[in-house]
Amino acid sequence: MRFVRFGEVGAEKPGVLDADGVLRDLSGVMNDLSGDVLGRLADLPLDGLPVVGGDPRLGVPVAGVGKVICIGLNYSDHAAEAGMAEPDEPIVFMKATSALNGPDDPIILPRGSEKTDWEVELGVVIGTRAQYVSEAEALDHVAGYTIVNDVSERAFQIERGGQWTKGKSCDTFCPVGPWLVTSDAVADPQDLDLALDLNGVPAQRGNTRSMIFTVTQIISYLSQMMTLHPGDIIATGTPPGVGMGQDPQVFLKPGDEMELRIDGLGAQRQTVLPPV
Amino acid sequence: MRFVRFGEVGAEKPGVLDADGVLRDLSGVMNDLSGDVLGRLADLPLDGLPVVGGDPRLGVPVAGVGKVICIGLNYSDHAAEAGMAEPDEPIVFMKATSALNGPDDPIILPRGSEKTDWEVELGVVIGTRAQYVSEAEALDHVAGYTIVNDVSERAFQIERGGQWTKGKSCDTFCPVGPWLVTSDAVADPQDLDLALDLNGVPAQRGNTRSMIFTVTQIISYLSQMMTLHPGDIIATGTPPGVGMGQDPQVFLKPGDEMELRIDGLGAQRQTVLPPV
Repeated sequence: MRFVRFGEVGAEKPGVLDADGVLRDLSGVMNDLSGDVLGRLADLPLDGLPVVGGDPRLGVPVAGVGKVICIGLNYSDHAAEAGMAEPDEPIVFMKATSALNGPDDPIILPRGSEKTDWEVELGVVIGTRAQYVSEAEALDHVAGYTIVNDVSERAFQIERGGQWTKGKSCDTFCPVGPWLVTSDAVADPQDLDLALDLNGVPAQRGNTRSMIFTVTQIISYLSQMMTLHPGDIIATGTPPGVGMGQDPQVFLKPGDEMELRIDGLGAQRQTVLPPV
Repeated sequence: MRFVRFGEVGAEKPGVLDADGVLRDLSGVMNDLSGDVLGRLADLPLDGLPVVGGDPRLGVPVAGVGKVICIGLNYSDHAAEAGMAEPDEPIVFMKATSALNGPDDPIILPRGSEKTDWEVELGVVIGTRAQYVSEAEALDHVAGYTIVNDVSERAFQIERGGQWTKGKSCDTFCPVGPWLVTSDAVADPQDLDLALDLNGVPAQRGNTRSMIFTVTQIISYLSQMMTLHPGDIIATGTPPGVGMGQDPQVFLKPGDEMELRIDGLGAQRQTVLPPV
């Protein structure tokens, strides 16, 4: 099943794509795609839902996101490209939830930005509370998968002192979607092609089989340190091809267009806008 | 004014302490201490509110916390004690909102913890949306002040690779309260004594005048990188006396009792419990 949230910013309704890809309105069945609902998406009664007309904007396909946890340097081919050693344990940081953005909403550069970069990532949406879970249990806590663009201002992230937070949490820097694809529809989360094109030219190419720490390992690991709650999103790291890694380096400028794709999870398309 | 949230975990109601220190129930006036309410606390009609009997548990005195932003190494005397240079720009990191805890709720050690430490900090609660605000405007966006204990597992934070998030976001590691004290009741946020006692013995002593970056500077700085929203909490750094800085180092063990105090902001008292 492919779930979405559609409508204007802050007024999104839950929806689902039927077998023919037609968008249907779920707002008569649930308040939103949040909380307990995320743990029982497979059991929802979805017959006879009203069709949604037009071509509405899509929002983040999960509501009530408590935290966005990111894993750094998690692709072996990206680590090799960057000339960095593979980490012994997952590198963990967070993006502010105020950075969440619809999958096709514009990216707005922060004032003073000269090094805003892209990172296509497999996003994992937590469906049920996970505390001290084993690797064997980990996937039972997943509601589904989506695409995350871990947009990053590299100067803020790396050159301004301290931790990465500054460059990871700018407004609009966390597009998620288009769909929340339920776990049963993803045969193997460790065999998904990822791609990001910049202005129609291939930038990132990878496959989740190159992850250093798998989805299963990441969930179990994080759950030893903090409880994962329904609606939490984990961005699992990015494959090679970010702008910072190119020679010469390439960063986003107003008017640039990004397209991100992951097997079975659809596509995101974002236009870059100048600072407000 | 001193606002609180009282009641069992997850079922807290808003309340206010009247001029005699009597707890009164605000749930007839507002749904909760969140969102727009935080920007107009001074204008609320508070006459004739019902008295709350007994001695209810207190929760985090603000609801709908979107992000907890922390400033690292922000006291000159703490930097000197640690033998570290003063940072050129604020060091910024985040605690997961799932770590939020009532001011007197127990701290539960994570499994495998051997280095859980304390940090008394002045907490700033945002009242109105702040994006690209100047230092002159910054305090206009503050709803009020509170105490934060930035509990930190030092091995998770420093010895497990990558960013600090791992040691900062464990469940129960972010006690906030007891009160949200409105800005008008805090004459000067840069002249407040802070104290933390461990088992009745002084551990931390400091004053907010030793901050390297003031509350005003921090709000303006952060707002250049991400929009601050009502209910966001900023923990502004800790004075000398953390356990990691002692010789030999001292860390929390089950049964330990912490008391935290800041001038005019009340006191927190926490008991340390073993892992679940």
